[in-house]
Amino acid sequence: MSQLAIDIGRLQNDLLELSHIGYDPETKGIFRPGFSPADMESRRWLIDKFEKEGFHARMDGAGNVIGCNHKDPKGPVLGIGSHIDSVPAGGMFDGTLGVMAGLEIMRVIRDNKLDCPMPLEVYAFAEEEGRFGGMLGAQAIAGDLTPEWLENAHDPSGVYLKDAMAECGLNAFDALDAHVKPEHFRAFLELHIEQGPVLERIKKPIGVVEGISGVYKWIVKLIGKANHAGTAPMDMRSDAFMGLADFAHEIPRIIDEEGTDKTRLTVGKVDLKPGYAHTVPGEADFTLVGRDTDPQVMRNVADACRRVLSSIARRHNLMFEFEQLSWLEPQPMAKAAIDAFRRHAKALGLDYEVMPSGAGHDAQFMARITETGMIFVPSLGGISHAPDEWTHWRDIEDGTNLLLHTALSYLQAKNKKAA
Amino acid sequence: MSQLAIDIGRLQNDLLELSHIGYDPETKGIFRPGFSPADMESRRWLIDKFEKEGFHARMDGAGNVIGCNHKDPKGPVLGIGSHIDSVPAGGMFDGTLGVMAGLEIMRVIRDNKLDCPMPLEVYAFAEEEGRFGGMLGAQAIAGDLTPEWLENAHDPSGVYLKDAMAECGLNAFDALDAHVKPEHFRAFLELHIEQGPVLERIKKPIGVVEGISGVYKWIVKLIGKANHAGTAPMDMRSDAFMGLADFAHEIPRIIDEEGTDKTRLTVGKVDLKPGYAHTVPGEADFTLVGRDTDPQVMRNVADACRRVLSSIARRHNLMFEFEQLSWLEPQPMAKAAIDAFRRHAKALGLDYEVMPSGAGHDAQFMARITETGMIFVPSLGGISHAPDEWTHWRDIEDGTNLLLHTALSYLQAKNKKAA
Repeated sequence: MSQLAIDIGRLQNDLLELSHIGYDPETKGIFRPGFSPADMESRRWLIDKFEKEGFHARMDGAGNVIGCNHKDPKGPVLGIGSHIDSVPAGGMFDGTLGVMAGLEIMRVIRDNKLDCPMPLEVYAFAEEEGRFGGMLGAQAIAGDLTPEWLENAHDPSGVYLKDAMAECGLNAFDALDAHVKPEHFRAFLELHIEQGPVLERIKKPIGVVEGISGVYKWIVKLIGKANHAGTAPMDMRSDAFMGLADFAHEIPRIIDEEGTDKTRLTVGKVDLKPGYAHTVPGEADFTLVGRDTDPQVMRNVADACRRVLSSIARRHNLMFEFEQLSWLEPQPMAKAAIDAFRRHAKALGLDYEVMPSGAGHDAQFMARITETGMIFVPSLGGISHAPDEWTHWRDIEDGTNLLLHTALSYLQAKNKKAA
Repeated sequence: MSQLAIDIGRLQNDLLELSHIGYDPETKGIFRPGFSPADMESRRWLIDKFEKEGFHARMDGAGNVIGCNHKDPKGPVLGIGSHIDSVPAGGMFDGTLGVMAGLEIMRVIRDNKLDCPMPLEVYAFAEEEGRFGGMLGAQAIAGDLTPEWLENAHDPSGVYLKDAMAECGLNAFDALDAHVKPEHFRAFLELHIEQGPVLERIKKPIGVVEGISGVYKWIVKLIGKANHAGTAPMDMRSDAFMGLADFAHEIPRIIDEEGTDKTRLTVGKVDLKPGYAHTVPGEADFTLVGRDTDPQVMRNVADACRRVLSSIARRHNLMFEFEQLSWLEPQPMAKAAIDAFRRHAKALGLDYEVMPSGAGHDAQFMARITETGMIFVPSLGGISHAPDEWTHWRDIEDGTNLLLHTALSYLQAKNKKAA
């Protein structure tokens, strides 16, 4: 019996065609920041694409493009999707794969005349990459936006979201109307590249996401005393950098004691003051970003960081201050969706790893309103957000076939509550 | 019996008068960078000062001002001195104390009609603070300059030494003629503020300098791989900052095993790349400055730093590169001069500490050509190179009296080789 399967050539053509919009020959990167001209061009291209295939498509108030195989879908529907905006100099799979895979599945259903009374909606969420500090499109659908936020959101160069949207012919406040009632959805599924090294390292083609890690970001200040690096003996210093170094040295122990193998702690930015070779640093300002999929583990790790920083500050005669810039709780994926992906991966003979997503995705907002599941395919060298982002076509095919069969189990279920 | 002593009121007046030249009311700091108008004004003021007191004074080709109590001194002479240029926003004692103390001692000899056949020369060295990257005046006297260096020396803002000197009416290449033959000197003595916290901490009024620490400066690069801080598990990272932190954590052990209580190791400047909170640092560039008074200890400590950096780089899967920007050997002070200071401190009832100088001083170049000794007086809070640099007048008085009696032991010695 020949297995129902997607047409990888057709999907490949779509992805390559889309990759020309916003392509920069010099960096070989894709430039489609949210609400840029190239981003809007790609959304219009996508609407055309759905319509040329005989499907229906529209753009909502948040700029989300929603394609559907029903003219006026009544819920519950199955949603599939991701995003088609990019970081500056991004790659050709980040987000786009999850959208174009949805279109391909819609074509497979059509071409095979499958009996799917439940409508399939494909979402190309707007502004996932956070140019304006959020995930606008998915937040809009999930009802997570406020007028205040829409009024004040701006990009790092000072361009306001509302002005950028106006230039695209959109009214930012219409994003509030993009909210979809939870009962509209039966479930939501997202396929995305891993953007990390795990699947490649363990040689598995599929990652079944158990949850999106929660994340917190601190700005920490250790304040000591700047001194002449020649005249101040080692034991008479209040060296802020040595405090930071001692803290960083404790990070593996903090994770061993309080965290799990899903815990991440990263010091990514360090600023020493005054920052002269011949001066003992009087102040060390640094970022600390922590992640875990378990809210209690995340709190325990954060508490341990605070305790260790306090005790190190005392030991080095430093003042310790920190500001929590953000704290986002972990978002587990739905057990039913995880199980469905696992079941169909087994049936397709695809080896998989149940794993956390350390990066944020549209699925984390969809999970607030409906049964949501997510899978990863391997990223070559773990590279993403860069022109040399790559995933083998074989892996793209396997991942999209898993998405197809899992989607069908929702779309064709007799009992609308089981998949 | 009343002890011969300096007149602290007179010295105080001189120091206060000099502190008005280049004074900035806003920062309350002194701005007399080498070969600035204020610096030149202070040199002309000093020449006038010597001449008004009935002494002789001149400026040599390097801009050094040399006052003398003989019209045309035949060697051997005793030199006393330091510098009167300042860092930007400097304090009123750094350097100036050692010069004005020399003038005061000259006046004590004159007023008390002391029998001193040996001439006393007081040196106000030019450009000690290194605006142009050296210690021009003392290097000129010691014969340590080359035409190439004079041609190329420039300050951080790109002003060439030769141009700055030309604006002061000086020809930079005349600095080569300032070289003084070693046989001109019997010895050289320098009094300076400590610029560090040790004397204040141990409550001693005098530091007898045993040597000027050697110093080396490295730029170290640890190169790993930048990664998404969410998607890269802790054990799949090549985190350049974690390598730096582990190295810094080893610094106390390196000093315990290879160094002494005079060893200093300082990481003063750190630059992480790309330097984003959410990205594992792919590169850590940092400065490492090492000091010791013993050349062998200095080499052992440097070797240990290199070994530890190599092994940490291997452990963290990093590349390790370093560039040695400078290596200056330690300069011991003359045992005879150290002994003379200790003997006279005891006679005056002044408690002293024999200690290294972690900072560089004019004395380190004078020590290359003659028997050289140096003493410190306490710096309040260890502060220097700042407007709130301060030393109690009582300590200024004690230090200058010790300099007086030690100088007299040279000037009045029957046998010109003993002091």
